[in-house]
Amino acid sequence: MTFVTDLLATVSRRSRELIGWKPAEFEPRTAADILALARTLLSRRGEASGTALARDILSGYARLDAEGRLAVLRELATGFGADKAKLDAAIAAYQADPTGAAALALHEAAEPRRQELIRRLNLAPGGTLALVRLRDDLLAHVGASAELQLLDTDLVHLLSSWFNRGFLVVKRIDWSTPANILEKIIRYEAVHEIRDWDDLRRRLEPEDRRCYAFFHPRLEDEPLIFVEVALTAEIPAAIGPLIAEGGAPLAADDARVAVFYSISNCQTGLAGISFGSLLIKQVVEELKRELPKLTTFVTLSPVPGFAKWLAKERRSETGFLLDEEKDLLAALDAPDWRADGVRAQKIDRVLARAAARYFTAAKTGGNRPLDPVARFHLGNGARLERINPGADLSASGLKQSHGVMVNYLYDLPRIEENHEAYAERREVVTSSAVKKLAAPV
Amino acid sequence: MTFVTDLLATVSRRSRELIGWKPAEFEPRTAADILALARTLLSRRGEASGTALARDILSGYARLDAEGRLAVLRELATGFGADKAKLDAAIAAYQADPTGAAALALHEAAEPRRQELIRRLNLAPGGTLALVRLRDDLLAHVGASAELQLLDTDLVHLLSSWFNRGFLVVKRIDWSTPANILEKIIRYEAVHEIRDWDDLRRRLEPEDRRCYAFFHPRLEDEPLIFVEVALTAEIPAAIGPLIAEGGAPLAADDARVAVFYSISNCQTGLAGISFGSLLIKQVVEELKRELPKLTTFVTLSPVPGFAKWLAKERRSETGFLLDEEKDLLAALDAPDWRADGVRAQKIDRVLARAAARYFTAAKTGGNRPLDPVARFHLGNGARLERINPGADLSASGLKQSHGVMVNYLYDLPRIEENHEAYAERREVVTSSAVKKLAAPV
Amino acid sequence: MTFVTDLLATVSRRSRELIGWKPAEFEPRTAADILALARTLLSRRGEASGTALARDILSGYARLDAEGRLAVLRELATGFGADKAKLDAAIAAYQADPTGAAALALHEAAEPRRQELIRRLNLAPGGTLALVRLRDDLLAHVGASAELQLLDTDLVHLLSSWFNRGFLVVKRIDWSTPANILEKIIRYEAVHEIRDWDDLRRRLEPEDRRCYAFFHPRLEDEPLIFVEVALTAEIPAAIGPLIAEGGAPLAADDARVAVFYSISNCQTGLAGISFGSLLIKQVVEELKRELPKLTTFVTLSPVPGFAKWLAKERRSETGFLLDEEKDLLAALDAPDWRADGVRAQKIDRVLARAAARYFTAAKTGGNRPLDPVARFHLGNGARLERINPGADLSASGLKQSHGVMVNYLYDLPRIEENHEAYAERREVVTSSAVKKLAAPV
Amino acid sequence: MTFVTDLLATVSRRSRELIGWKPAEFEPRTAADILALARTLLSRRGEASGTALARDILSGYARLDAEGRLAVLRELATGFGADKAKLDAAIAAYQADPTGAAALALHEAAEPRRQELIRRLNLAPGGTLALVRLRDDLLAHVGASAELQLLDTDLVHLLSSWFNRGFLVVKRIDWSTPANILEKIIRYEAVHEIRDWDDLRRRLEPEDRRCYAFFHPRLEDEPLIFVEVALTAEIPAAIGPLIAEGGAPLAADDARVAVFYSISNCQTGLAGISFGSLLIKQVVEELKRELPKLTTFVTLSPVPGFAKWLAKERRSETGFLLDEEKDLLAALDAPDWRADGVRAQKIDRVLARAAARYFTAAKTGGNRPLDPVARFHLGNGARLERINPGADLSASGLKQSHGVMVNYLYDLPRIEENHEAYAERREVVTSSAVKKLAAPV
Repeated sequence: MTFVTDLLATVSRRSRELIGWKPAEFEPRTAADILALARTLLSRRGEASGTALARDILSGYARLDAEGRLAVLRELATGFGADKAKLDAAIAAYQADPTGAAALALHEAAEPRRQELIRRLNLAPGGTLALVRLRDDLLAHVGASAELQLLDTDLVHLLSSWFNRGFLVVKRIDWSTPANILEKIIRYEAVHEIRDWDDLRRRLEPEDRRCYAFFHPRLEDEPLIFVEVALTAEIPAAIGPLIAEGGAPLAADDARVAVFYSISNCQTGLAGISFGSLLIKQVVEELKRELPKLTTFVTLSPVPGFAKWLAKERRSETGFLLDEEKDLLAALDAPDWRADGVRAQKIDRVLARAAARYFTAAKTGGNRPLDPVARFHLGNGARLERINPGADLSASGLKQSHGVMVNYLYDLPRIEENHEAYAERREVVTSSAVKKLAAPV
Repeated sequence: MTFVTDLLATVSRRSRELIGWKPAEFEPRTAADILALARTLLSRRGEASGTALARDILSGYARLDAEGRLAVLRELATGFGADKAKLDAAIAAYQADPTGAAALALHEAAEPRRQELIRRLNLAPGGTLALVRLRDDLLAHVGASAELQLLDTDLVHLLSSWFNRGFLVVKRIDWSTPANILEKIIRYEAVHEIRDWDDLRRRLEPEDRRCYAFFHPRLEDEPLIFVEVALTAEIPAAIGPLIAEGGAPLAADDARVAVFYSISNCQTGLAGISFGSLLIKQVVEELKRELPKLTTFVTLSPVPGFAKWLAKERRSETGFLLDEEKDLLAALDAPDWRADGVRAQKIDRVLARAAARYFTAAKTGGNRPLDPVARFHLGNGARLERINPGADLSASGLKQSHGVMVNYLYDLPRIEENHEAYAERREVVTSSAVKKLAAPV
Repeated sequence: MTFVTDLLATVSRRSRELIGWKPAEFEPRTAADILALARTLLSRRGEASGTALARDILSGYARLDAEGRLAVLRELATGFGADKAKLDAAIAAYQADPTGAAALALHEAAEPRRQELIRRLNLAPGGTLALVRLRDDLLAHVGASAELQLLDTDLVHLLSSWFNRGFLVVKRIDWSTPANILEKIIRYEAVHEIRDWDDLRRRLEPEDRRCYAFFHPRLEDEPLIFVEVALTAEIPAAIGPLIAEGGAPLAADDARVAVFYSISNCQTGLAGISFGSLLIKQVVEELKRELPKLTTFVTLSPVPGFAKWLAKERRSETGFLLDEEKDLLAALDAPDWRADGVRAQKIDRVLARAAARYFTAAKTGGNRPLDPVARFHLGNGARLERINPGADLSASGLKQSHGVMVNYLYDLPRIEENHEAYAERREVVTSSAVKKLAAPV
Repeated sequence: MTFVTDLLATVSRRSRELIGWKPAEFEPRTAADILALARTLLSRRGEASGTALARDILSGYARLDAEGRLAVLRELATGFGADKAKLDAAIAAYQADPTGAAALALHEAAEPRRQELIRRLNLAPGGTLALVRLRDDLLAHVGASAELQLLDTDLVHLLSSWFNRGFLVVKRIDWSTPANILEKIIRYEAVHEIRDWDDLRRRLEPEDRRCYAFFHPRLEDEPLIFVEVALTAEIPAAIGPLIAEGGAPLAADDARVAVFYSISNCQTGLAGISFGSLLIKQVVEELKRELPKLTTFVTLSPVPGFAKWLAKERRSETGFLLDEEKDLLAALDAPDWRADGVRAQKIDRVLARAAARYFTAAKTGGNRPLDPVARFHLGNGARLERINPGADLSASGLKQSHGVMVNYLYDLPRIEENHEAYAERREVVTSSAVKKLAAPV
């Protein structure tokens, strides 16, 4: 183990050393330069000069401004497709004699040449990270362009291959983690902002806190995704107490519940290459090993689309809301609607019923839940366990969901089954409590 | 660095842990079982059950006898090709409107389904190594079968992607390397047999000896290829002194030459996915860093095809050998031809001239040198530097090359240029001394 | 190496695990409790229960208030001396027959019993650190008490043995160092305050910055001492530019000078057990290895006693200052004396001459330089190289030394010789420039 | 953890680097040279030159022949004692005013000067190991000399301080341990010889085998002591099956008993500085953590003094053996006494009774058990659990104990109590079965 450890460390060191390996012969400065080099790279056979070329192309690209980059991306999408003559010939050959070999030859002839280009770029020192960033650029434009979509398809195909699960490593992040990793945790936290190093320490050091991240051998010190965990005695119904300052930590040995209260992706350029489900499952396994007394693994999750959906329901004549409910919910339009505690309780009850309905009945065109967070966790095989009104009283919490948060339950023995129910039949798996809430009055 | 080191170690540990992760529900026992599971795996969406299935398929395959395995390989080659109906539809769509998107769709439709299967198998714990071994099985049969060749093409394509250079790690092997790695060095040494642990120690411990190997994160303790190096004062002209027992080692600081005297591939299942060139270049770089006084990097290499080729030349009426040379070489037919020292010297001179000719003029159908070792080193960008008659007086050395060995020179600044000369124009790059020897009399 | 690495890591882990190892049977709450346990520990033979007792004593001591702790320290100093009866007997035996054996027996009989007690306390998990902290408490009181001095002598004797040079490890501190170490660097920096994590990063991350610390196997994550280094093109004459924000770093390869601009001890409880000299020498060696182009290793050091000494000189009738110099220096009494640039230049020339005099002529009772920083560096074998007026224009710099700072030069081949000159003959080794300045006008 | 790991590794590397640090100015060649340097070292103040001197003394000593070494040892023992004049003055001062300070001054004056010398030698690179080897030399002569005994006392005192428990690290040895460590395990195995690397592997690789060793930061790759463990279903009654080749290993999870079947000290120069007890206890803790189903921790130990003692008993008129027992035991004088199985069984019963008696009644002058292995384990707090006749049928087993072996039981909760019973009252703690056997007939 030690031996393997040691040798693997060399991957990254070597990459860094190679960066200064050989001075660039020619610094490409324009999109046209870069594309010329790219064509050269595709035509060359030499391995060593190939690496140097790939490095020059990627560093040249990184120096371009937004316009220059877009020009490169467009040309990659349109000018590096399959060779039409070869492809036509391969089709003809296949049609003449449709053997497996002819199909394979056709497969190869139809491969866009940019795939080989991307493979060669990947071999540059730091190439993988550079390609992840290139895809980040691409994502900013891809929506508007069917052409760019082609490039994206190729990038996703290749990145998925290099970021396959076998290479991912889950690693605990704590207060003895190197500072250069920790600063990235601060930077990438997307759910509950980490204000400074002291705030970070509060999420890492107490014995009732954990944090885990995925890493990849070629991305060195760059976390791919991380999850923050709080250990508690019971399933939490509100976020405030969980992230508040001060208060004595729970002894880890007294914890029964692990709460995943924040999950953040770090590399936007890897969007759509999902690791989240795998990370949560591995963290559950690791926590169970370390703390066998843990019985329950849940999230405390936001409900981003709820307020917007509810507004529409309130205006609808044919919705499920009763008239007296609509009357009560009218109070939501005033900013201080929680000031009247008795009324707020009544409203919360309606919100709970509405949220249950939202999760089970509000669907996208593809018959999946409207709520994106729900899609993520249900897709992972989690179950919608509990609806918590009044759980997030921050301005943004009130705005996006009138304060409602929910718990998704990760029950390992059921995960696979839940996942298949969702994936195959679009079934929303919920607890009986949620089912009851969602039932017609 | 430390952090990365540590986290990467987890890859292998986790793999091992997962092996016992979940008991197989169903132990496949026949080729038919395994193929049925493979079809299920291809059709499933669930990620976790997918991993378990992949593991069961690979371990089931490993338990099969040779016949069973071949049956699986044949079916993979023939029954898991592209879906003909989909492919035909994609062709039609492309022909109707030959856009980039249509070409890409065609590319995907033409992909043999076994590629996706192999990708999924790779995700099993230990999956990569299992696939390398499956390819080893395949190589035993592939020559005889165009069908199996298709499967091999797919395996090579995917293995090349996972074993791309960015993941390879060069690591020094010495006497403080873990025993489980060292026993593999003993086992895999293919050029000059390592007899036992004492013999191994003689190649690792003295300060004028080095050994380096390539490793891959998913193959844990399995070296991919290794090279043994001797540090000397001058370019060696014979192998005997280099591997003899006893004798004081040269002080590393007095060395000027690094001799690569043995290069061994470890994973037959990775044949054709070449790392040798890269390893030698990295070792040269590392040695230069450690010992800046080293000026020369050469091999001391066998000439496996020489004796056979020379025998033919001796029988030829139209060859380049002069009649008096043929007369002298007649002595080679007696086993003790080196007994007469004066005559042996004369013979050695003829052998040198003949060998020079052999390297520069004897070609394969593809106009490449007949000698496989020459193809390897010239392909790496090395130069044929010197021909050493009487260099290997062992029985096998006399048999395969009448005792001739050669030095290939790795001159880093020239490697790329040499490589291109060879790759593009089939040029055999030699020293002027060899050129002179090869010139017509 | 890897193996050793790995095994050593276990020291600290094990220590931590043992902390929770066995619940204390009895929690000592008063000084009397603790002293009773200490007597028990001294009388016991059992090894395992000894460890538990030692732990209980040390944790009990840590829970005491200041008064309780002092009571324990006093009793250790007075009630745990040598056994008088045994000592008298040993003296008698020695006087009767003064053999080596009798002298050794006398040595043992005269050993204060607290030494054995301290040795046993040291074996508790975390015992070494606890004893370092106990000595910290002791140092607050020791000045006032000859008795406590005895305890201090014993502690110093034993701590010196456990912190002997062979166990110290120098380690580079950089931005990938674990956060729990880095926060201690922030906390312990004693010369130029580190304001926050960003300020810290500026001292660690740029390629012209280095930081090194000493660690000890039993003090885990606690640095003992650290030094901050700036790489520059020339010997710096002022601190401002060195620690200013912004500005492009010097390429490490262009550096010729390494400047030790801050040295901080971390463990007050180890005062008098000096590592500073050793650390600087090791850092010099390491920097030379990494950057062979470095030619000069200097400090940029404060002169803490200068202003006070100069004030006295200015008042003295018989001092070395000329009358016109005194007149000029009168300006120093106004806070804005540097406002008049022309005059400030003149004053700086006088300050330089006075400082040269201060270093060479102002002595303590023991004939050592009055300046404590000078004593440290001269004692290490450094040479006083250059006097820099106007080097530290901060409020504290102006106050303690009217802005003067100095460079001490660490010239490895001369260090030993300089050190002996200072240690044996109290010689202040200076450059010829400083000698000239110090000469009578 | 990672950080600490990494930094500690530097200890040994640095030591090695320093070895070549500065060329010796003067190579001492005779005992007289070395002693002259030793006196210089004692008188010097310079730290750096001190290290070089210490290194030269130790390497000079290592080059001496046996006679030269003995001359050095003798002079260290006699010529480096306390300074008589200073000691007499300290006695006088103490007698005039017997304060704590005076006693401490006396303690210091009575310290043999060789202690300071040894402390300084220890600071040389590799100094600790060199001193361990010097003591090894000393032990060969010390028995004959009261003078040398003084030197030994000082060495033991200082080595005990540097090898205190806080610095020891227990580490599992397995088949992935570096080869340079493993070859030492082969070399140092003292109980059941390890024949070659294959034999070693059989003791490390199967899942029912474990091996653990103690290491020390300054002794790098040198194990101090190691223990080999077999995991079994029941307490074993014979050594043969335990170390036999072949046979399927027990699944670790099915094991209930851990058998310590071989314990070997590696450094003869550390004789009398006992780590064995501590190692066994730590290994018990580690095994319990890893395999909670283990319930029993025993040795399978030789009984080296039994045959010799029994021979005397058989000749004694007044011993405890009955006449018919003596008659039976007469068969022991023939080499093939176990050939007659029925009689051998009868003899074994007598041997068991005799062995029980041997352990409980046969004592040294100091009223401790005659058997050295018993003294070791009882001193550790183990209990004599079971007597196994016919347990070791090897030639040496039959010779030293007529085939009898015993199990000592390590019952953690009782260890301390047992240890105290033995240490304070010389009580031999045995199981009731042994007690019954030992009872008079």
